[in-house]
Amino acid sequence: MSSKKFITNNFLLSNKYAEELYHTYAAPQPIIDYHNHLPPGEIAGNRSFDNISQVWLHGDHYKWRAMRTMGLDEKFITGEASDQEKFEAWAKTVPHTLRNPLYHWTHLELKRYFGVDELLNEKNAASIYENVNAQLQQPENSCRGLLEKMNVESLCTTEDPTDSLEYHREMAKSDFSITMSTAFRPDKSILIEADGYNEYLDALGKAADISIESYKDLKDALGKRIEYFHHHGCRLCDHGLNFVSFEEFTDAEIEKIFSKRRSGGRLSHKEQEQFKTAILLYLGQRYHEFGWVQQFHLGALRNNNKRMLAQLGPDTGWDSIGDYKQAENLSKFLDTLDGKDKLTKTILYNLNPADNAMFATMIGNFNDGSIKGKVQFGSGWWFLDQKDGMEKQLNALSNMGLISTFIGMLTDSRSFLSFPRHEYFRRVLCNLFGQEIASGALPDDMELVGDTIAKICYHNAKDYFDF
Amino acid sequence: MSSKKFITNNFLLSNKYAEELYHTYAAPQPIIDYHNHLPPGEIAGNRSFDNISQVWLHGDHYKWRAMRTMGLDEKFITGEASDQEKFEAWAKTVPHTLRNPLYHWTHLELKRYFGVDELLNEKNAASIYENVNAQLQQPENSCRGLLEKMNVESLCTTEDPTDSLEYHREMAKSDFSITMSTAFRPDKSILIEADGYNEYLDALGKAADISIESYKDLKDALGKRIEYFHHHGCRLCDHGLNFVSFEEFTDAEIEKIFSKRRSGGRLSHKEQEQFKTAILLYLGQRYHEFGWVQQFHLGALRNNNKRMLAQLGPDTGWDSIGDYKQAENLSKFLDTLDGKDKLTKTILYNLNPADNAMFATMIGNFNDGSIKGKVQFGSGWWFLDQKDGMEKQLNALSNMGLISTFIGMLTDSRSFLSFPRHEYFRRVLCNLFGQEIASGALPDDMELVGDTIAKICYHNAKDYFDF
Amino acid sequence: MSSKKFITNNFLLSNKYAEELYHTYAAPQPIIDYHNHLPPGEIAGNRSFDNISQVWLHGDHYKWRAMRTMGLDEKFITGEASDQEKFEAWAKTVPHTLRNPLYHWTHLELKRYFGVDELLNEKNAASIYENVNAQLQQPENSCRGLLEKMNVESLCTTEDPTDSLEYHREMAKSDFSITMSTAFRPDKSILIEADGYNEYLDALGKAADISIESYKDLKDALGKRIEYFHHHGCRLCDHGLNFVSFEEFTDAEIEKIFSKRRSGGRLSHKEQEQFKTAILLYLGQRYHEFGWVQQFHLGALRNNNKRMLAQLGPDTGWDSIGDYKQAENLSKFLDTLDGKDKLTKTILYNLNPADNAMFATMIGNFNDGSIKGKVQFGSGWWFLDQKDGMEKQLNALSNMGLISTFIGMLTDSRSFLSFPRHEYFRRVLCNLFGQEIASGALPDDMELVGDTIAKICYHNAKDYFDF
Repeated sequence: MSSKKFITNNFLLSNKYAEELYHTYAAPQPIIDYHNHLPPGEIAGNRSFDNISQVWLHGDHYKWRAMRTMGLDEKFITGEASDQEKFEAWAKTVPHTLRNPLYHWTHLELKRYFGVDELLNEKNAASIYENVNAQLQQPENSCRGLLEKMNVESLCTTEDPTDSLEYHREMAKSDFSITMSTAFRPDKSILIEADGYNEYLDALGKAADISIESYKDLKDALGKRIEYFHHHGCRLCDHGLNFVSFEEFTDAEIEKIFSKRRSGGRLSHKEQEQFKTAILLYLGQRYHEFGWVQQFHLGALRNNNKRMLAQLGPDTGWDSIGDYKQAENLSKFLDTLDGKDKLTKTILYNLNPADNAMFATMIGNFNDGSIKGKVQFGSGWWFLDQKDGMEKQLNALSNMGLISTFIGMLTDSRSFLSFPRHEYFRRVLCNLFGQEIASGALPDDMELVGDTIAKICYHNAKDYFDF
Repeated sequence: MSSKKFITNNFLLSNKYAEELYHTYAAPQPIIDYHNHLPPGEIAGNRSFDNISQVWLHGDHYKWRAMRTMGLDEKFITGEASDQEKFEAWAKTVPHTLRNPLYHWTHLELKRYFGVDELLNEKNAASIYENVNAQLQQPENSCRGLLEKMNVESLCTTEDPTDSLEYHREMAKSDFSITMSTAFRPDKSILIEADGYNEYLDALGKAADISIESYKDLKDALGKRIEYFHHHGCRLCDHGLNFVSFEEFTDAEIEKIFSKRRSGGRLSHKEQEQFKTAILLYLGQRYHEFGWVQQFHLGALRNNNKRMLAQLGPDTGWDSIGDYKQAENLSKFLDTLDGKDKLTKTILYNLNPADNAMFATMIGNFNDGSIKGKVQFGSGWWFLDQKDGMEKQLNALSNMGLISTFIGMLTDSRSFLSFPRHEYFRRVLCNLFGQEIASGALPDDMELVGDTIAKICYHNAKDYFDF
Repeated sequence: MSSKKFITNNFLLSNKYAEELYHTYAAPQPIIDYHNHLPPGEIAGNRSFDNISQVWLHGDHYKWRAMRTMGLDEKFITGEASDQEKFEAWAKTVPHTLRNPLYHWTHLELKRYFGVDELLNEKNAASIYENVNAQLQQPENSCRGLLEKMNVESLCTTEDPTDSLEYHREMAKSDFSITMSTAFRPDKSILIEADGYNEYLDALGKAADISIESYKDLKDALGKRIEYFHHHGCRLCDHGLNFVSFEEFTDAEIEKIFSKRRSGGRLSHKEQEQFKTAILLYLGQRYHEFGWVQQFHLGALRNNNKRMLAQLGPDTGWDSIGDYKQAENLSKFLDTLDGKDKLTKTILYNLNPADNAMFATMIGNFNDGSIKGKVQFGSGWWFLDQKDGMEKQLNALSNMGLISTFIGMLTDSRSFLSFPRHEYFRRVLCNLFGQEIASGALPDDMELVGDTIAKICYHNAKDYFDF
């Protein structure tokens, strides 16, 4: 192994402009992690971790996929093997993840949180395991400590409308330095074709104290939960959809479709699309009313492996990138809301890089002079949350929109150890701009360029969100 | 601000090979701007401009979109603000367009036409406005002067079949050094679903002196206008379509569809597609008969914002990139014409970079030994008319076709100040080739490579078109 | 012309890391050419070539397309011109193929097989023709000699199920140093809509000694041929499809569909898709039973030019890249096999680079711990078999999967002179990794990175296939 460090001070920064941009304008900015999937209960309880597998491997389906690709037995991934065995399985996998973001993330996280400079592999797995586990026993490495270490100013988790927000209410009263907000994610009320839809409606009805018998009831229930979430500081929502639906409908049709499903019937494809269109338009109007930001995560093809879905459930590493037609529906959806003057601030996240240009130009269709960068093309998401994916998103947005108005990075992560991804994004960003200063494509005016960098890293998000 | 100039002699040229290619082989070539949207009346009248806003901002929806993205009020964009206020609004926007082509274009245009070396911003807006306006009063900065400054040899505007071509006839008699031709653009006769279709037919009938009652009449009218355009020097046509239609039809069906629409009826999607297929095939055959070049601009998703469409009309900055299926229809359309030996020279412009590979290979299917590069993959269009978009088009064409046969750049612009885009393209082109000489991917044979550059910049277009 | 050599020792290698990776870890590896279209009879007969046109131009539709793009007459391409005239036509074309892979391949092949260092053009065509033809008379430049020169360890040709495998049987008994295997390619039994389908079934029935009257008979016949192929060393199959079909069906429906077609009837689009789904699922299960690897070449849009198809037949240079929806069907197909525990090792080749991300993530959905890299994203295919296409595939696979498990390059070629494409791939691969070591994106640990390179060039394929 090389004696040189891998994660150096100038990691990913290829020239002096990139270095100056990063160290002077990007690194000092606090982090607004405006969308993630952290468990609020663990923050409220300030959980400590017995070992690194708990905080690093237990919920990380990116690592699971890599281990499966190496042909490892599921026992060492999500199965009954011990935490140490699982760590060793991961350590053995790491050298084989070269050029995958996991290789960078792994070493950036080991370095930033635990000062580990070695390249993780089978041989040093035991000693690193011991070293890091010992550090995890320190109070500064509890959930809250890990977040504070990364200079996080605020973060926003994601909850179902049925959620009581008990931990958010608890945190609102605490003296923790980091603001914890929530995002309203009503996917389960939208995906009418899903198994368990009616059971979900029962739960939603209970949360809203409304017996949901009609589509109107559903709207009322969602409306009440939006109010509840708003009252507890929520200013953001999120939707995970293959694509935005847009099928013409009448209110009467939607009531009929809803009744059919509510009484256990099956819907045609068209009926499903009509329903989704209706409810998304309803929700969009309510979000606008409350001044929320709406997020759409589009383009995933989920649950491809039915055998493993049955065994492990969703979100366990069996999803991939879809190739849906997105543009026309999305345009009509946004236009319909805009035409009623009900289009709220919107962030569109795209999972298929082939659609980057489409998304980067779509956002320019609905600016109305009310705010800078009203409709945003979100940062590289999921499979695209890596150097190449980020660069493609940044380049598409730069060339077809105004990168200077971009609200930048978010982790979208379930892990307390993912916050160095903000650093990673910032390095990639500064490197892109720095290379263009060097090549003469950007002017050699560090103040001008640096100001843009600082906005993308922090100020634009600060202005855009009402956290 | 930096004291260094931004637009230097070697702007965008990253090594000595790129520099030599550009300065020796590219820069000296005259410009054949074979497709643009300049107003012929202004050239005929040799219009002068009171101020830079008139020539630079009044018709430029690229700049409008950027200003809207910054959250500026429409008043300062297309509204009632003064020309000076609009210029200031734009100047204030410019520093926020970093990495967008507008940033490069802005400074390239200020430099090439008016010798301005400063980076435009809010602070120097007033002085630059005054400086440039004064220059615009000089006779050499009238429409014709601006064109001559750029070493334009010929240009081709775009007109509707109803156009009288009065200005082209006038210019044909003038001693102006630049040849001005026209391209026949019959979109309004093709888009049968559009509002105002019947009114348009009335106008077309009037221009052709034919009362259009049947599809046959329509064909006759278009045929007469093609003859008229040809008689006045037209050798080119253009079509702006989401995608090329290809739906099987019979002549009887088309007559019935036409009658239905002519008498105010509404058509099914299939009927619309059948009609478009029929009329495009008809037109394609006529173009072949006259030896014209046919152009297709494909892939736009237009008029996304209905509220602003109602307020400002089309082509005002509310369009974006579509994600249509293009390949099968396009193949069948070109094959049908080829099968009748009626496929004329054809240029395909693509708006979605995800389709570049498809277009770059499609053009190779219909070469018949009659001419070099018969079917062309047009240069990066609209949102792709920028460094990254150009490079992607050039790379796709190079890797999957023969870049040496490419007819190169065109402005497609409404502005008299857009001609430095040819320079921009040439710099990008020479930089790509120069980098590959440096890396050893191209041989270090400047004559061989330079000859290819000169062809792409000028000679191929000169050979391809009959201007 | 430059006096410098073009194909140098470090061609395409841009820094010392790339050089070391290539020369130390890549170049020494033997070649496993696990998929090509070489004519087995010529290997068995150890054919010699009268001249370079025979071995280099007669079957190469890549070169034909380039010549057609130059506007050359078909006479000099596939027509009645002499071999020398054809060579001259090609030589005249070569300088105009700059930036196309043909330019690199041409000079790499002339150099590696015949020691020619000149850049081929019209002027030196005659002398190079004479020089190379003389060399072709030497025994070491027969088919077998050409293969041995390239350090080929094993190769796998592609045969129809009707093939007698007579040459493979002959070669199995020979002492030739290179193992020659075959891949089973049953496209003609799958493409039920094709002209001549029933005639093909007659031939297949004859080969299998089964009279094919029902779908069951067809399955039996294919099953018998799979057994026959397996017995003669086949461990691999291949399918060329626009996209993988997936349309729900019942066995009764398939029998009915088959009978309809067998008796000369025409099928609806849905019926065709049902049939293809059924037979692909059947075949997939059989392949699994025999432990074969199944290959799918997806995304081509074939036979675009009907006029030339009628004149020259398929595979003569009139194909291009399609823009089909691929993801959902592919997912369902693989999942259906996986759900029955019948998914065998699978390689997916993609022709449209816009779909790279989709393919690179799809393969991660069906790893089951049985083997490293069970489902593979195949190397850049056909139009993508060039530096840019390879890099895009390598980058997508790296960022979204594990490049370290990749089985690497194959020629997919009909030509005995194509084997330097392995060298070409290896140079591109080492250059990519070498650049990242230099930039700090990969650790400066040559053993770690070199080990990955050696695996991709040789060891992974060696482990994956049972040749």
